[in-house]
Amino acid sequence: MQTATPRQADQDVTLTLARYLVQARYEDLPPAVIHEASRGLLNWMGCALGAARHETVQAVLDAQTPFFGPPQAQIAGRAQRADILHAALINGISSHVLDFDDTHYRAVHPSAPVLPAILALAEWKRCSGRELVLAYVLGVEAEIRIALSVFPEHYDRGWHITGTAGVFGAAAAAGKLLGLDETRMAWALGIAATQSAGLREMFGSMCKSLHPGKAAQNGLSAALMAQHGYTSSTRALEARRGFGQVMSSRFDPAVITTGLGDSYELLRNMYKPYACGLVQHAVIDGVLQLRREYDLAPEDIEAVHATVGPLVVELTSKPEPRTGLEGKFSVFHALAAALVFGAAGETQFGTAAVLDPRVVALRRRVTTELDPDMRKLEGRVRITLKDGRQLDRHVPEALGTLARPMSDADLEEKFNGLIGDLLPAGRTARLAQACWDVARLPDAGEVARLSAGAC
Amino acid sequence: MQTATPRQADQDVTLTLARYLVQARYEDLPPAVIHEASRGLLNWMGCALGAARHETVQAVLDAQTPFFGPPQAQIAGRAQRADILHAALINGISSHVLDFDDTHYRAVHPSAPVLPAILALAEWKRCSGRELVLAYVLGVEAEIRIALSVFPEHYDRGWHITGTAGVFGAAAAAGKLLGLDETRMAWALGIAATQSAGLREMFGSMCKSLHPGKAAQNGLSAALMAQHGYTSSTRALEARRGFGQVMSSRFDPAVITTGLGDSYELLRNMYKPYACGLVQHAVIDGVLQLRREYDLAPEDIEAVHATVGPLVVELTSKPEPRTGLEGKFSVFHALAAALVFGAAGETQFGTAAVLDPRVVALRRRVTTELDPDMRKLEGRVRITLKDGRQLDRHVPEALGTLARPMSDADLEEKFNGLIGDLLPAGRTARLAQACWDVARLPDAGEVARLSAGAC
Repeated sequence: MQTATPRQADQDVTLTLARYLVQARYEDLPPAVIHEASRGLLNWMGCALGAARHETVQAVLDAQTPFFGPPQAQIAGRAQRADILHAALINGISSHVLDFDDTHYRAVHPSAPVLPAILALAEWKRCSGRELVLAYVLGVEAEIRIALSVFPEHYDRGWHITGTAGVFGAAAAAGKLLGLDETRMAWALGIAATQSAGLREMFGSMCKSLHPGKAAQNGLSAALMAQHGYTSSTRALEARRGFGQVMSSRFDPAVITTGLGDSYELLRNMYKPYACGLVQHAVIDGVLQLRREYDLAPEDIEAVHATVGPLVVELTSKPEPRTGLEGKFSVFHALAAALVFGAAGETQFGTAAVLDPRVVALRRRVTTELDPDMRKLEGRVRITLKDGRQLDRHVPEALGTLARPMSDADLEEKFNGLIGDLLPAGRTARLAQACWDVARLPDAGEVARLSAGAC
Repeated sequence: MQTATPRQADQDVTLTLARYLVQARYEDLPPAVIHEASRGLLNWMGCALGAARHETVQAVLDAQTPFFGPPQAQIAGRAQRADILHAALINGISSHVLDFDDTHYRAVHPSAPVLPAILALAEWKRCSGRELVLAYVLGVEAEIRIALSVFPEHYDRGWHITGTAGVFGAAAAAGKLLGLDETRMAWALGIAATQSAGLREMFGSMCKSLHPGKAAQNGLSAALMAQHGYTSSTRALEARRGFGQVMSSRFDPAVITTGLGDSYELLRNMYKPYACGLVQHAVIDGVLQLRREYDLAPEDIEAVHATVGPLVVELTSKPEPRTGLEGKFSVFHALAAALVFGAAGETQFGTAAVLDPRVVALRRRVTTELDPDMRKLEGRVRITLKDGRQLDRHVPEALGTLARPMSDADLEEKFNGLIGDLLPAGRTARLAQACWDVARLPDAGEVARLSAGAC
């Protein structure tokens, strides 16, 4: 075999990635990566279940149910089953509806496009837990590397990278479960590339969670089509009219191919303790720390002032949110609700909390100040009390970041909180256990089946 | 109601378009537009049926059949029926596989994304022929206006505009058939926008025809989701992070909103008489005219010399094609086959014709000469006969262009040629008649049902 020079490798980016995906084995995975896969699966499952009754999920079910094929795969948290393509779509949407799913430390919500695709496929094809874990790890690897090859320019232009890169993750992971050869894996990546889509203009509407849903569905479909001989370019990533150059002003192919197998992006994955965008977490963390330490009640508080980085101002400056969804894009609501309720979970970002008079009153006394030098996950808060005291807190890294990861126990608490009474007594614990034990399951579909709900 | 200034209209591009789509009525359509809809339907149906047995269609059927829902809609030329979303996908692919479908005079293959979506929906919902015609006209209007708002920069960047703009056409047309209100129509356009995709890198692979297939399927799905309350931005076209600015370096919103209802882009639609790229049509036309007028036989011909524009040289210079697909990219084959068979339909671009010894012998005596000033659809040919005579023909505009449209009889001859013996005796004529009469059909689904095949 000819040894590829760096230049040749750059020219064969798609095929080089495809070759790695085809050759990688479960035995190669470090134990930490396998454990992280369990953590990611548990966190993902909690988020999908927590959204199972959401109006967004109801709307897509109302629209799509008449077209469902055979009941091959479980819809998380619902009684209904669907063909695997629809299950991937709907579970992909529910993964992200609450904006509570995982986040790679640089870009992309990694699990929402990948897990719905392969969990459905694993259930249908009766794959083992080890196969599922390997496919998950590799799908995330492909998705993140492709994302980073165009980040941040691609995102800055207006692409929702969880959708645009996610479709590659779903295709790679599903292609691995299907055992595609190198050419067909490259076709799967190509069929994915030519469906890569999702605009940031959709943030604040139900379409934001459509992006990982379609990424899961289209990526899965891409792998199935490649398996059956549907051809594509094998240079979809690097070609002049391929993904990298058409969809970004900068494309660094070496990010995709360098050091494949030497490290795992899944280890750079983060879980959110709070049910809103990461950029607000540091300041939420700050007010929760002060509330706890000084035992603050809302009526003690005169004003709240937060010093934040540019993304907080850009993304979360809605002064008067009226729905739960809008509340997630209002740092004013987030800080007020955290101080009123002492938490920032899904309930605190529900419409009832957004309309709660105590929250409304307090959020009108929240102000923000831009510090352009502040890092993305950093924040500073000052609470002025009615008695004149000022309480300050600087949070260099919010809980849930790589520097301060949520523990396994934190994650299970979050999972339990999200599921509440959605599942019958005892099943929540069995489902959590199945996620922790996934690599030992003879049939990975068990995880999916345990997620069946009553509604 | 406040009168919108031009500036306000620009700012409300998506809603302005949505309002027009919702308010437009069949009674507003000029008779020429209604007749053009019949012509477009007939031409589209011939192309879809002509590809029904193609390996591309077989591959997608093999991959997708296990996930089909209820048999709501016909797959053109096959025995099989599918749920409407799969029917839209597969008929969208077969529309474009032969590259023989219609072409708007500036950009986009208009019918391939639109008709598969609404024909399936009309069959399922039992819509009338008038409803289908109106939806078709409006879908094409939306699709072409959106395409022209970013053309040619968007295409030059590498987007396959039939896919990227087609999804809007399918959404608009399906939304009209579903009777969406203005807000929901804007959501449908938004859900379409955030799925807009398709890379030119795929040209030459099966993915080229996947683009209108996915556009049809995703646009239909967008309209159904909007109907059921799945929300989107209502500024998907014009917003800073919307379609126009993210996917093109130039976006002219006025092209979308100016003069809606005053003219119809469907009247600027062209049909191909020959089963290959438009750029070769003028010279094919020239040799066919000479063959007919002088009653030429291949053995009379010493040499053929064609004077062509730059695109012919760039796209169709393959000297020794070996397959039908390669033959479409060889002007040498095209002229030889036209002279041997007296036609340039799908059969003349089949692999058998490409390998035919008479064609091979003649194509080696075809030469070309570049004239950089020649327009895209212009050409000149000189045939030198063995008796020494030289026959010249200049074709300023090929048959099938707006200046020299195919007649109704030409279109029906093309339709019959494409269908061959695919349908049972008598049904080809009934199907053609149903296309001509579509505006008078009480149930538009009749057109779809008549397209059922035996394979």
